[in-house]
Amino acid sequence: MLKALLFDTFGTVVDWRGSIIEEGLASAISLNWPEFADRWRAGYVPSMDKVRRGELPWTNLDQLNRLILENLQREFQIDLSDQQKDHLNRVWHRLNPWPDAIPGLTRLKRKYVIAPLSNGNVALLTNMAKRAGLPWDLILSAELSQHYKPDPECYLTSVDLLGMKPGEVMMCAAHRADLDAARACGLRTGFIYRPLEFGKTRKADEAAPNDYDVVASDIIDLASKLS
Amino acid sequence: MLKALLFDTFGTVVDWRGSIIEEGLASAISLNWPEFADRWRAGYVPSMDKVRRGELPWTNLDQLNRLILENLQREFQIDLSDQQKDHLNRVWHRLNPWPDAIPGLTRLKRKYVIAPLSNGNVALLTNMAKRAGLPWDLILSAELSQHYKPDPECYLTSVDLLGMKPGEVMMCAAHRADLDAARACGLRTGFIYRPLEFGKTRKADEAAPNDYDVVASDIIDLASKLS
Repeated sequence: MLKALLFDTFGTVVDWRGSIIEEGLASAISLNWPEFADRWRAGYVPSMDKVRRGELPWTNLDQLNRLILENLQREFQIDLSDQQKDHLNRVWHRLNPWPDAIPGLTRLKRKYVIAPLSNGNVALLTNMAKRAGLPWDLILSAELSQHYKPDPECYLTSVDLLGMKPGEVMMCAAHRADLDAARACGLRTGFIYRPLEFGKTRKADEAAPNDYDVVASDIIDLASKLS
Repeated sequence: MLKALLFDTFGTVVDWRGSIIEEGLASAISLNWPEFADRWRAGYVPSMDKVRRGELPWTNLDQLNRLILENLQREFQIDLSDQQKDHLNRVWHRLNPWPDAIPGLTRLKRKYVIAPLSNGNVALLTNMAKRAGLPWDLILSAELSQHYKPDPECYLTSVDLLGMKPGEVMMCAAHRADLDAARACGLRTGFIYRPLEFGKTRKADEAAPNDYDVVASDIIDLASKLS
């Protein structure tokens, strides 16, 4: 019996790209914000992979984002104070949910335990939820296993903390690699289509109806399909 | 600046004794429920101490409670099926909050990050919150550091996961030993008086107004003193 739903966060629940561009354009810092957002996101997987391969000791996402930001500062030839960088780095705590996220999660929460399972650290996910009103039952994170997705430890530690079996838990994400790794650990899988995640710079993942246990057009559709 | 409040749970937020007695008396199992509840609770500290001293490997509270329950079954000469024991053991997931807990926490949540910091495991605290409607922002637990309170690792891991400094976090509890240990780690402290926690079997801890940063008569009073 399905008891809990775990959600990838960046791209699946919140619109990281739109949020960074919007906040950037409203700020006093003048630069090509769409490109800056895309470049920041592009640094994300390689920096986590360094941790996953053991080239870096455990480093949480706030710290990785800050390292990437230092490189971007040079690349975009901008001069930011430490205080500006601290504030800008925490834009990842201030991302806005897709319009369907809060109504969909609110419906799902009546029947299931709901939590993020993100590579974002606990503080980031807590601050994001509090600001945006995401109604999580608890915060789960790669930080709790010190293994980034798609390492199996990340999924299995979460299942263990919930006191459940893998088959009682569904990973929900807009990214096939995340779902494929969760499925290999015995979790159920829910695909959520986010065609606009990368703007026009990169095609979003797609899924056919039978590729995963549930394939949904958004989180409200997921709630309908699981009720 | 104070940013987060961590709450001891058993006795401070929920009435474990009254809840176990009430559920027991309503069940089909005939025994001296007040005495049974007290004996169960009496097994709690010694069993955690075995983990704290390294005589047992990490064992979460659901598992420790189940071990104590096996002993109680012999002591009270009752014959329970495995299914009955599984259900009874999870009474710790079904404890009722003190009447001031939800209104007090709801007020505090507007201004602070609020979380349990309990020796209860993550699943126990998640199920308890969902059933009772406790409005936590996230679930913190001894399980996340694999160190039971009052080990310093338990407090310091929580502060670290929040991305805060110890002085930005207040431990709130009805038990002086918990607060004294948190204070030694640099956290602020809030005492909450729960005169009825142990019924008439044991005197509850008391505190004078200057013993801790805040001394409150209940969680509503704590909210008034912190607003």
